[in-house]
Amino acid sequence: MKVAVLGVGLIGGSIGLAAGERLGAEVVGFDPDPGTLETALGLGALDSIAGSVSEAVAETDLAFCAAPVSALPALVAEALRHSGERTGVSDVGSTKQALADAVSDLDQGPRFIGGHPLAGAETSGVENSRADLFEGARWFLTPTERSSGIVFDRLHSFIAELGAQPLAIDPAEHDRAMATISHLPHVIANVLAARAAETLVAAERRPELGRSFRDATRVAGSNPGIWGDIFAANGAVLADEVESVIEKLRAVVGPLREADGPQLATWQAAAAGYRQGLLDADRPGGALLELRLAVENRPGVVAEIALALGRAGVNIEEMSLDPSSDGRAGAISLWISGDDEAARASAIIGALGHSVATVTGGA
Amino acid sequence: MKVAVLGVGLIGGSIGLAAGERLGAEVVGFDPDPGTLETALGLGALDSIAGSVSEAVAETDLAFCAAPVSALPALVAEALRHSGERTGVSDVGSTKQALADAVSDLDQGPRFIGGHPLAGAETSGVENSRADLFEGARWFLTPTERSSGIVFDRLHSFIAELGAQPLAIDPAEHDRAMATISHLPHVIANVLAARAAETLVAAERRPELGRSFRDATRVAGSNPGIWGDIFAANGAVLADEVESVIEKLRAVVGPLREADGPQLATWQAAAAGYRQGLLDADRPGGALLELRLAVENRPGVVAEIALALGRAGVNIEEMSLDPSSDGRAGAISLWISGDDEAARASAIIGALGHSVATVTGGA
Repeated sequence: MKVAVLGVGLIGGSIGLAAGERLGAEVVGFDPDPGTLETALGLGALDSIAGSVSEAVAETDLAFCAAPVSALPALVAEALRHSGERTGVSDVGSTKQALADAVSDLDQGPRFIGGHPLAGAETSGVENSRADLFEGARWFLTPTERSSGIVFDRLHSFIAELGAQPLAIDPAEHDRAMATISHLPHVIANVLAARAAETLVAAERRPELGRSFRDATRVAGSNPGIWGDIFAANGAVLADEVESVIEKLRAVVGPLREADGPQLATWQAAAAGYRQGLLDADRPGGALLELRLAVENRPGVVAEIALALGRAGVNIEEMSLDPSSDGRAGAISLWISGDDEAARASAIIGALGHSVATVTGGA
Repeated sequence: MKVAVLGVGLIGGSIGLAAGERLGAEVVGFDPDPGTLETALGLGALDSIAGSVSEAVAETDLAFCAAPVSALPALVAEALRHSGERTGVSDVGSTKQALADAVSDLDQGPRFIGGHPLAGAETSGVENSRADLFEGARWFLTPTERSSGIVFDRLHSFIAELGAQPLAIDPAEHDRAMATISHLPHVIANVLAARAAETLVAAERRPELGRSFRDATRVAGSNPGIWGDIFAANGAVLADEVESVIEKLRAVVGPLREADGPQLATWQAAAAGYRQGLLDADRPGGALLELRLAVENRPGVVAEIALALGRAGVNIEEMSLDPSSDGRAGAISLWISGDDEAARASAIIGALGHSVATVTGGA
């Protein structure tokens, strides 16, 4: 099997490494930056370097376009134009509809099937490539009515062999869901960070940032180049999401101005239901419970707890750690799946001498 | 020293435990729920139970009102009315201006100084009380021009002896800052959860919730009763915050609809600057760096990493763990303070066989 990687960053490099190690594939790469190609060759992510897109795609079974989202329409078209009848072309961009539209008019369109691995979105650079980057990760594929069944089958198998979990989805549906789940939280994080910077600069004595603020702004400003592109590529859908959020925010201004506690409590309870419903749907095995504990913030304390849980075979689904103002103490939240597991975890942590509370309704 | 606790939940109970253990104070409690009082007595959070507010506050040095925010004006007034000249009265509510206004007309107003410990906001119940709940935690005090210096001095010392870090702040400034840092992220989390529930219910094939969504909605719907109250008590200020966010969201709709990548990238870069600036101000010791690693999501893996860092004396300031779709792998982010510490941590994790990337600009 021969695979071309067009654009050799974190994702392209990791496809190369995984294809070589797991499938014994021959990997040829092209990138506008010669230094990147040399690095990739040195890491073993590529077997050979091509001088152009057309040279890279020749005689390949699959060609992956791994350029920034805004460069994909031109790159995919070039890859299709220069490759033969048996070459399937895919991409790894974070948005899918615009690219599907751009390809839909091309004669070679049936040989293209869009893709989007949910991995590595927040790191970059070929030097961070790993053969196991896609292990267990969702990898969306967006075939259309015109798509070749042979290409889809080959692409699907290839991705599964990389260790990922392929799932076919309509391009528009993909973009809508990603707008809600990923792009919108990024927009909101930016706005919160901007607002806080504004308010707190004026404050003479400013409170430390609490956990809710840190959580809410964790992704603020990540990778401006990449994210500017993603926002733009999904601009129309994301703008709709933003406007829907604006509407929902408007709806709460009234009860806030009227200081209507009961109505605000009802609104808060509804949100609890929404979040729990979303989390439960993610985990048919059991609802996620939050254990909250306060500990000394010394090196080793997280280890002690995680180790004890590990020994007992209890898996930590999510973890969040928040230091106190002076850094000496910290609140740890652990999310455990299922009532029984959570009860076991609680007992184990209690036996270590930490007091632990199970948070209900607000996880 | 004799202390009254009026309202014996998590905070009231913890004040009682800490005052008893650390200061050898005599603690008397009142709560409308007799069962709660019995529990608190059994836990040692109280030395005795009073049958009324007036009985509880008699002969005390300090009385803490630890009721829901909406009940505080009446409770504080009652505590002031029934206590003697030498009793200082405080509270532990999450908002301060409305209460300060309510007390400002009272003859006994100078004996009241508002307070707000940043601890335990998301758990509740006297059964979760701990003597170390306030260890290292910020505890705001909101004296006004009328406040008694003697009461302030006594309250300040008492809080410091509980292990907390008292800091005086203007009530309005407190409420404004908390609106931005805490209340607004809660409102936003609710709206995001509501929007996602709407969108994803319609989706035939829905992507798993990613880390950015989980982080952004972690506090959605927490403690509806308590939060309905807090939102209402800080309603006017919070409504201003929400409207400011609406304005900022409106400003990004244009560039999104125009799919203006470069402008969106500039906007994203500005957000990165805001967030880093806020985090750096929190940690004069050194900027926070994010190390990102992908690991097998098996019990014990977090322990292994945390333990190795602990042995080397490297402190984990924050941690976030995100499972892959199939739960077999997970991305871990560790935030380490300062370049040197982060480099050491990176080397230690690398030596364990995990590949690790330092994320720049987006922490």
